[in-house]
Parts: sequence; structure tokens; C-alpha cells
Amino acid sequence: MDIFAKFEKRLGPIGDYAEKAPGYFAFPKLEGEIGNHMKFRGKECIVWSLNNYLGLANHPEVRKADAEAAAKYGMATPMGARMMSGNSDNHTELERQLAEFVGTEDAMLFNFGYQGMVSAIDSLCSRHDVVVYDAESHACIIDGLRLIPSHRYVYKHNDVEDCEKQLQRATEMVKKTGGGILVITEGVFGMSGNQGKISEIVALKSKYEFRLFVDDAHGFGTMGKTGAGIGEHQNCMKEIDVYFSTFAKSMASIGGFLAADKKVLTYLRYNMRSQVFAKSLPMPIVVGNLKRLELLKTHPELKEKLWHNVNRIQNGLRERGFNIGTTNTPVTPVHMQGGLFDATQLILDMRENYGIFCSVVVYPVVPKGTIILRIIPTAVHTDEDIDKTLEVFSLLRDKLEQKLYPQEMPQIAAEATV
Amino acid sequence: MDIFAKFEKRLGPIGDYAEKAPGYFAFPKLEGEIGNHMKFRGKECIVWSLNNYLGLANHPEVRKADAEAAAKYGMATPMGARMMSGNSDNHTELERQLAEFVGTEDAMLFNFGYQGMVSAIDSLCSRHDVVVYDAESHACIIDGLRLIPSHRYVYKHNDVEDCEKQLQRATEMVKKTGGGILVITEGVFGMSGNQGKISEIVALKSKYEFRLFVDDAHGFGTMGKTGAGIGEHQNCMKEIDVYFSTFAKSMASIGGFLAADKKVLTYLRYNMRSQVFAKSLPMPIVVGNLKRLELLKTHPELKEKLWHNVNRIQNGLRERGFNIGTTNTPVTPVHMQGGLFDATQLILDMRENYGIFCSVVVYPVVPKGTIILRIIPTAVHTDEDIDKTLEVFSLLRDKLEQKLYPQEMPQIAAEATV
Repeated sequence: MDIFAKFEKRLGPIGDYAEKAPGYFAFPKLEGEIGNHMKFRGKECIVWSLNNYLGLANHPEVRKADAEAAAKYGMATPMGARMMSGNSDNHTELERQLAEFVGTEDAMLFNFGYQGMVSAIDSLCSRHDVVVYDAESHACIIDGLRLIPSHRYVYKHNDVEDCEKQLQRATEMVKKTGGGILVITEGVFGMSGNQGKISEIVALKSKYEFRLFVDDAHGFGTMGKTGAGIGEHQNCMKEIDVYFSTFAKSMASIGGFLAADKKVLTYLRYNMRSQVFAKSLPMPIVVGNLKRLELLKTHPELKEKLWHNVNRIQNGLRERGFNIGTTNTPVTPVHMQGGLFDATQLILDMRENYGIFCSVVVYPVVPKGTIILRIIPTAVHTDEDIDKTLEVFSLLRDKLEQKLYPQEMPQIAAEATV
Repeated sequence: MDIFAKFEKRLGPIGDYAEKAPGYFAFPKLEGEIGNHMKFRGKECIVWSLNNYLGLANHPEVRKADAEAAAKYGMATPMGARMMSGNSDNHTELERQLAEFVGTEDAMLFNFGYQGMVSAIDSLCSRHDVVVYDAESHACIIDGLRLIPSHRYVYKHNDVEDCEKQLQRATEMVKKTGGGILVITEGVFGMSGNQGKISEIVALKSKYEFRLFVDDAHGFGTMGKTGAGIGEHQNCMKEIDVYFSTFAKSMASIGGFLAADKKVLTYLRYNMRSQVFAKSLPMPIVVGNLKRLELLKTHPELKEKLWHNVNRIQNGLRERGFNIGTTNTPVTPVHMQGGLFDATQLILDMRENYGIFCSVVVYPVVPKGTIILRIIPTAVHTDEDIDKTLEVFSLLRDKLEQKLYPQEMPQIAAEATV
């Protein structure tokens, strides 16, 4: 059989319907400067889809640093893998500052967060080891786990009791294998907005021997008194043995880092395959990240404004009777009832008639009959943006409840701009 | 047991000795503009370690494009995954131009080459399928293969007879599983410099049903009449079903792309996990790559100069009796005899006393008693650089043969610059 034959059947759960309206439900083009208002198909929208939590993407000092670094270095340098020919003083300085900020002995940059996570898990875990992990872990964690030969026990999302059960099983298993146990979870879950129960998991260390690996992609910059993340927020950073974050969210950039003891990172520096065998993080991105980190540390008003907006929109939604689940972070999922046609008609209506752009999650990511609209408040949104969005969400919910949306895929004209 | 306990024992094959001289044999800092001459620990060296084949890294038009794009867009935009909120006209335009250039129906950008390859293999191959692949495939191909549940048969490096044997086994296997066969190899092998025997593998299509996936990271820009890569060079592009390259070599950038039929890439766009669940390639990098591609296409003299230098150094080495293996591409491995101490003393001598910086490969990557010095000629090297390097290599070989190097790890002072 032709190995490509399977692609003629279907595009997968998302592609199957999205291809009916290319560039609308999938691969939309948001144009203009990253911010609270951007253009979609030529029309201005309030945008709630970007993890630009602190508004650093277009902060004037960030834009200046990015422009100057690219002019000074170009995008090519350094060339080669970090270990071979891709190291620089800026890379080591950013690592030093990150370690200092989150309070670990050492930090290590990645060329990209996703593959950094995959290779970190790959390097940390041998076939003798056992991993215990949260069921709602991000795709990059799952890919890392798929790669390793270690035993793996999954626990129900944020269920510390079940985590303990799996730790008991893991403890029995390592008695046989002679390996160690790694617990992997997230600081902030990007879909539900739930904080990982890090401090409760840490408490289990008194009963079980394990190391704790926390993916804090959404927590770095948004959580904790100084923005140093979930470890600071839950006052348990010392007990997080491997702290991971990406630069793709609060830092409005690419790449990522691990923060941990020197002993651990020295090993990882020489052994993480995606880092040893692929190019280093480009210099202008490293230099731009130094500036972003400086602003993140010295401008607490950015995080304060973020949280003002988070509270305003979450309280507003709750007051209007919306179900926003159990979020206790900026990530704000708005649960509604409806099928796939409802979801597509709702999104079309919201964008075309009310100028609001937010991301939608449907079956099979969530159960049939459920729609989740995911709102990411940022420091650059205004009270007016929030109040308008609350109004519109109420209107759209009424339409859904009154079953006013046609039960068919909307007809959408080809893109206005090419 | 503590899962970190294993890190106290050893750092792995490379780390074990490199940590004795931090920043010297591993994680060196090359300073100054990317080019034929750069600074290492404050001293100017001729650099042979960078895959800047066409010299685009510091081409004035590239530097201008990089600076202007970063000033116009900043490094943050677009935010989010390509599918969710990270698409732009520049991304689709670069894809259009890449497809046109290499001669396929469609092309698809990646946010990073390494994870692009891993996820491409992951998405293409089901548990019913069978992969036949070259034994010297790059780490990113191996990681992709480690991730998938498909049967895998490896063939001896560039051995078409053995490839056919494995195809026979694969053909028997898919009769049972009902899946298809994917052959994966490289256009240019980055260590040996051997071209993959693509046209010979293509010829096997008359006897076996399979699709061919070629990683042309080192071939794109360097091989073929117009630089369109190994498919053009071996006149078999139409039979390469999935063509992969990174932007990290000739394009002096980051990211990568696949070129293939639209049907295949449409499926991959909706299903490649590292692309669906991670941030899009930053805009200034996309815009910078548009400029690089334009120069690659319109300045054939860059490739001509590269090949002038390749021929001069390879002929020079052969005339002096050096063993450079079977390379038929710019990658130039120089095989020498010696142990680990010889290798480290040789590299120290070459850098400190002769101002030449090149990468070295030792056991366990190559057999014990063998040293490979890997030379990457580029369009920005001069005849003088080459002639001096040839002289020095002869001198160093004499020292090795006369066993003049102390049989101990060299004592290297801490970095000159901090």
C-alpha cells in the first residue's frame, strides 16, 4: 500500500472541517502590531488569543532591543550547535540571570522550548526510571514520554490523591528496576488555567523518594510576587528539582530554559540531543530576551495590570453566570453548550459582527456538545475591551441558548487579503 | 534511588573530558562577525566549523534585511502556533517560493528543523507502516524513528544493495500489516560528506512500492545547478516524495521546511505536533529567509566560489596524501591517526600556535585510535586561508606521526574573556 494513501481519507480531527474555510478557523492571519487590537481579514478585532501576558511583545524598549540586536548581529549568529560553535557571552549571561531570578544554582537555554522539553525528559530518564505525570500534560511532555523506555504512570489531572497512588506503584517498580522516580506536572495548565498542585505534590516528598519537574510555560512572568513563577507563588521553589519555561508566552519570544542544580544541567548540556545536534538560539533573540527579563523584573506594574484585567474579566464572567471552570491563573476558559456548527457560527458571528477574536476548542479536544472559548487577558487590554467582550459574550450565549445559529458550516468567502 | 544519582557518575562520552577545559573543546565562544576569520579567546583564527556554505550570514543584503525586518516587526510576532494565531502572508509567501524553487507542488515551514523532522516522521508513519533508513542518519531522524511504533529496518550506510534487502523485508512485513513503506535517507551526510545514493534508491521504485523521504540539510544551496539540492544534482527530484531541509546551513538562519505534494503537506499542517502545539517561526526570520532565498537564487557566483574553495582544499589535501574519505560534497573530513590525548593536544596546537579553528571528532563517535578533523569550506574563505590550512595540516600530521604530543590532557587556562 502507498504510505500516503491514508492522507486521502481525512485530515485529522481539526483539519477535517477547517479546510472548508481555509484561513478562518485554522491558520488565520492576524495583522498589525501584536496587541489588544489587531486586524483579521482587514477588520479590527479585540484579540484574546495571544499569550503576550505582560504586553512585552511591543513594549518600546523590547522593540528597540530587538531592532538593535538584529542590526548589530544579524539573525545568523552564532552558527552551529551550542556545544560545537554556537556559544556566546550573551547566552551564558542570560542563563546566569535566569538562574538568579528563579532562584536556582544554574540555568540552561534551549534553541526551542518544545524540543527542549522532549530532549530534557529523554536525557533525564533511563529505562530503569519511572515517571509519574499529570494526565493533562502539554504535548511536548507527552512526546518526551513517548520517546523514553521508562515505566510511566499517569495520574488524574491535578488529583494529588491519585498522584500518591501512582507514586506508590512507582516506588514498588523502582525497587525492582533500581531506578529513580520523576514526577512531571505543570505550573499553570494552558487549557484549564488550573495551577498545578505543586506544593501538595512537594509535601509527598516526605513519604516517597522522587524528583519534581515542573513545566511553568504559562506561570513564568505571571505568577509569584516578582513574576518568578509557580514555585515563588506556592512558596516551594526549593523543592522543584527541574524548572522549565518557554520564552514563547510572557517573554514574547522563542526558545526556553531549564533551571536546576549545576550537576543536573551540566549533564544535560552534554547530552540533550536536540541541543547537541541542532543550532543554538540566535543572538538577537538572546539579547532581546535579556531586555525582556530586565523589564519583567523591573516593571511590576505590567504584572499588576495583567492581574487587574484577569480579575475584571473573570469576575465579570462569573457575575454574568458564565462557567469558567476552576482557573486560578490568567488563562480563562469560557464553557458553553453547543455542537460543531454552533461553534463555527458563533466564531463567525463574534468576529464579523462584534469584532472579537478568540480561540475556540471543540470536540474531540473537549466532550461532544461542549464549546470552550479561551480568553488570554494581557497587560495591554483595556477596561473597555473587557466590558465590550463581556457584553458580547452574554449576547452570543443568548443566541446559542435560543438556538438561533444555523446548523451548518458557515459559507466563508476567500480571504480578503492575499 | 535518586533519579539524579546517575549524573554524579559521568557526563557522557563528550562531557567526561571536555569539562576538564570548559569552553575550549566544548562550548567554545567564537566572537566577531561570522566569516572566515573570527576570534577565539581573543585570538584571530581561520574558522572551518560553520555551515555558512554560501557566506550568506554576513552578506550585506542579508544583514540589511534582518535589521529592517526586526525593526519593522520586532522578534515577537506572530505569536502562537501557526494554526491558531501564528500565520502571516510572509510565511505563506516563503512556502510558495520554496516549493517553486525546489520544484514541488507545495512547501511547509517549521519553527525549528530538528523538531520539524521528528514530528514529520511521527505524522507520516503509523504502526502499520515500515521505515527503511540509512544507518548514518542524523540524530533528528533517529529521534523521529524512536517516537513511532512502526517497524524499522536499517541499511548499511549508503549501501544500495543492503537497502534493497531491507526493502524486501519491509515488503514482506507490510503484506502482514497492511501499511506502506517509507525510505528515509540524507542528500548529503554531514559527517562523511557522502552524497546519499538517491537516484539509485529511486531506481528501486520499479521493483518495490515505497515513498522516499530525503533530509537535504547540507545539500540545499550547495548541490544542483541552481542550488536546489540533491534532487536537482542527481536529476531525480520528481521521485523524492518528501524533501526536507533546514535553514541552519546554507540559509544561515533557523527553521526548516518540507516540500512535497499538497495532499501530504495539508495533512501534516494539521497534525505535526511540534508545529500545532508550539510557536510559529518569528516574522523577522521568515522575512530574512525570503531575502536569503532570493540571493541564493540570483547569485550563482556564491555557489561557484564555494565549489572553487571545496575543490582547492580537497585537491590540496589529497595531493598531500591526506585521507578525506569518500566525500563528494563540500563537507571535508580529514582522517588522522591518534588517541584522545593526541586529539586534544593537536587542537590546542592548531588553535594557539597556528590560528586555525576546526571541529574534531573522536572516539566514541569514530573508532578508537582515529581522529577526524571536519572542515567546512564556505564561499567567504580565501585561497590564502586554504593554502595556510594545508601547510598547517601537513605540519600537524608530521607531529602526530612523530608522536611529539604529550600523552596527557593539556592544561588550559581559564577563559581569557569572561
